[in-house]
Amino acid sequence: MIRVRVPATSANLGPGYDCMGLALGLYNYITVEEIEKGLVIDILDDSKRFLAADERNLVYRSMMKVFEKTGYRVKGLKITLDNHVMVTRGLGSSSAGIVGGLIAANAMCHNRLTKDELLRLATEIEGHPDNVAPALFGGLTVTVMKKNGPRYIRADIKDDLRFAALVPDFFLQTKKSRTVLPRTVRHKDAVFNASRTALLTASLLTGQYDHLRTAVGDRLHQDYRRKLIPNMESIFRICYQNGAYATYLSGAGPTIVAMVDVKNRKFEEEVRARLRGRLREWHLYMLKADNEGATLL
Amino acid sequence: MIRVRVPATSANLGPGYDCMGLALGLYNYITVEEIEKGLVIDILDDSKRFLAADERNLVYRSMMKVFEKTGYRVKGLKITLDNHVMVTRGLGSSSAGIVGGLIAANAMCHNRLTKDELLRLATEIEGHPDNVAPALFGGLTVTVMKKNGPRYIRADIKDDLRFAALVPDFFLQTKKSRTVLPRTVRHKDAVFNASRTALLTASLLTGQYDHLRTAVGDRLHQDYRRKLIPNMESIFRICYQNGAYATYLSGAGPTIVAMVDVKNRKFEEEVRARLRGRLREWHLYMLKADNEGATLL
Repeated sequence: MIRVRVPATSANLGPGYDCMGLALGLYNYITVEEIEKGLVIDILDDSKRFLAADERNLVYRSMMKVFEKTGYRVKGLKITLDNHVMVTRGLGSSSAGIVGGLIAANAMCHNRLTKDELLRLATEIEGHPDNVAPALFGGLTVTVMKKNGPRYIRADIKDDLRFAALVPDFFLQTKKSRTVLPRTVRHKDAVFNASRTALLTASLLTGQYDHLRTAVGDRLHQDYRRKLIPNMESIFRICYQNGAYATYLSGAGPTIVAMVDVKNRKFEEEVRARLRGRLREWHLYMLKADNEGATLL
Repeated sequence: MIRVRVPATSANLGPGYDCMGLALGLYNYITVEEIEKGLVIDILDDSKRFLAADERNLVYRSMMKVFEKTGYRVKGLKITLDNHVMVTRGLGSSSAGIVGGLIAANAMCHNRLTKDELLRLATEIEGHPDNVAPALFGGLTVTVMKKNGPRYIRADIKDDLRFAALVPDFFLQTKKSRTVLPRTVRHKDAVFNASRTALLTASLLTGQYDHLRTAVGDRLHQDYRRKLIPNMESIFRICYQNGAYATYLSGAGPTIVAMVDVKNRKFEEEVRARLRGRLREWHLYMLKADNEGATLL
């Protein structure tokens, strides 16, 4: 019996569209067991309303990729999922499933594949590396796609930051959220984002958080996605009014994440109070960063 | 008598157009003395062929900005310049002049202005902060322009890197070098550069230099400027053939800078040998990073 814990992830972080991500202390637990034959998928939590419990299941499909690659002949599988990462909300639930499946299957194959090989497989399955990299490695990751696969650098996130995930009740398909983006942008807007990802990386690596609000500035995706996310501006405003260092759209949304100092004790209470009115469809989760990444338990 | 040393600087670093820069161990020395009246400017080196030695002189004009700001009434000035930073080559000679003038004048006013105020003044004079910031603070700088002035983060550059400056005999006006840039770019090229500046920042801050070649990738300015710089591609190729981690166009060019490991002892000799043929107009300077910035001597 193999048990894997995989963190939620938040990608883009404002300017780092498709290249920056970080891991959060909210987890999916994946338990797998080789059985005599067949496939049994047991989903313990509410996500079973949205996830396939047969051969189409993403955890299962990811496991099969490892078995194909390593030549491992599995008899049958029992997969038990205990998911805490909300589905289709921009918190990397699919990446968590993929990475969890890969790590679990690799453990069954006596870890024949390296973590870098798992990153390559995960990126192939997910299509982009910005969530799967932090799910695998934890911390902050910068990823770029090269012809021969993803390259990445990871760094720990210091423990003086908290991440406030504001998760609404509604969904947003990544595919739809991508179609609203323009094919071309102004040169100066490209320069704007390039300057912000550099500042954001430097800010998080050196702990100079006073620059974070400037550093999460974006002109490549957030403005275009605003119209798909009712009350996005109100949520941003509430976060900044309560002392957030930075606020950004997590992944393709609709979740919004605010970076908050661990010493900012009023943030949680005040923001909860503000959500009680006409923003009742938004839910606040105060999370730590995860610097470990996917872990065999 | 006040004497200031200001480093050369290299901006853009590939993807970090208008926002990233670093200081190099090659210096201009500026000596100023208050005299009874008038203005005497003495330029000791060859740059006197290019620089005004009257009220139009950039060091002088920069000094006057500090005197205006602080209300200091100067009688007369004797300015002596000993410049080692090549003029109009993309190594920040004008920023060195501006920063040197500001620091010297501020010393005459008993340092009434902070370094951040000097950065603001320098940015106003130069028009952008990416060279003046590293000239002032040394090391690696990430700068962004906000309505209320420049913001920056600086970090030391580790001493295991050397910077090979390949400086050609010909000039390139920054203004001309800017007119070749397009007004719009593809969204995916904007994403490309945003990912590279993040990777470059992380790579330099964590010392993971194997990522540098990927990290200096650029789609916002270098390709457009190539046609203005004969043999740019040959120089890039020669640098990479001899083990450079990264090669990029310094500022608006025409200087090309390669980042090289301090242990790569053959680089200098081999590259010099390659320049002796049809590339005789290119000159190689092996430089250290400067982590001190402008200094009162």
